[in-house]
Amino acid sequence: METHATFQKSTQVEAPVLELIGKRKSRRAYADRSVSQGTIDSLFEAARWAPSSNNEQPWFYIYATKEQPELWNKLFEAVNPWNQLWAKEAPLLVLALARKTFHKNGKINQSARYDLGAANAFLSLQATEMGLNVHQMGGFYPEKAKELLNISDEYEPVVMMAIGYLGSEDQLPPELKARENAPRERHTREAFVMNKGF
Amino acid sequence: METHATFQKSTQVEAPVLELIGKRKSRRAYADRSVSQGTIDSLFEAARWAPSSNNEQPWFYIYATKEQPELWNKLFEAVNPWNQLWAKEAPLLVLALARKTFHKNGKINQSARYDLGAANAFLSLQATEMGLNVHQMGGFYPEKAKELLNISDEYEPVVMMAIGYLGSEDQLPPELKARENAPRERHTREAFVMNKGF
Repeated sequence: METHATFQKSTQVEAPVLELIGKRKSRRAYADRSVSQGTIDSLFEAARWAPSSNNEQPWFYIYATKEQPELWNKLFEAVNPWNQLWAKEAPLLVLALARKTFHKNGKINQSARYDLGAANAFLSLQATEMGLNVHQMGGFYPEKAKELLNISDEYEPVVMMAIGYLGSEDQLPPELKARENAPRERHTREAFVMNKGF
Repeated sequence: METHATFQKSTQVEAPVLELIGKRKSRRAYADRSVSQGTIDSLFEAARWAPSSNNEQPWFYIYATKEQPELWNKLFEAVNPWNQLWAKEAPLLVLALARKTFHKNGKINQSARYDLGAANAFLSLQATEMGLNVHQMGGFYPEKAKELLNISDEYEPVVMMAIGYLGSEDQLPPELKARENAPRERHTREAFVMNKGF
């Protein structure tokens, strides 16, 4: 089967979905407004209730708000220059890590990244519900983060998240401004859902 | 830092979260009620709008309903015996696969499993919203699934999902009945959220 020859994309939601899923988008402009501790607690509480393989819960987070400049700067320093262009305004930075092995037997947990993805998806929808924007970044330096934060080898830094209330696109550098309001786009379901074998 | 010496668990939701996140649970008893095509479409549409690294959308699904016994049986045959005990009643089976490489350059996509985890998290919350139960299984045979469904090496089978409306615990074998109504349990946030370096 050659799916890719027939890939279609669209910007439309084409079947009924949760309003939060329909409207979530990873934006880059942050308002100058801090995120309260209670709100931060709800973000991680949402992550906490994700399912995971053997209920291992292999997720781990280090976060800092702009009110904690020393720690925030360490996280920010691990972000790559392209993402620093806009993440510099994020009032909350979160480094999401995966625990590599199972607690019960020390074996490699092949589901760790998958489960972390689920936890961060829950966190992102919780954020959307509370009026926050989450922008996940693969564009950061895991080794630098490990060094700056003295992270144990048990954990793998997987993604950095910039979180905050939405600002104005006018804050952004010209090269990012157009992206900020561009519609989201995805392959249509026909490209990735099959009701038969290959 | 030795977090694990101090691990606490609780069954309580300890900060406000979305109702769907607060109540979602992976159960095993399925009612004898089929899942409509429109509902199936909404499940995959929810997955479709997950975020992904470079908007690659590395998720791929093969599904079958019990009304399609030939295909459903192929998926079911790839489930391990322990999970077959209860998954045999699931009206909808879904094999979730990750595309291993990026379309644009053929390089290995290190985020593929992570992004699939996010897509399936969206799917699971959409299911919860529609009154469906999703139970993800790592306990299946990926190689057997590849063989039975003629799956290309481009894709890695990552998780099998049993989906359907909730049935009664009395349908379940005794060893699973107690689990069905046991409260969900998680580490408390203190065990996995840090507001400092290690």
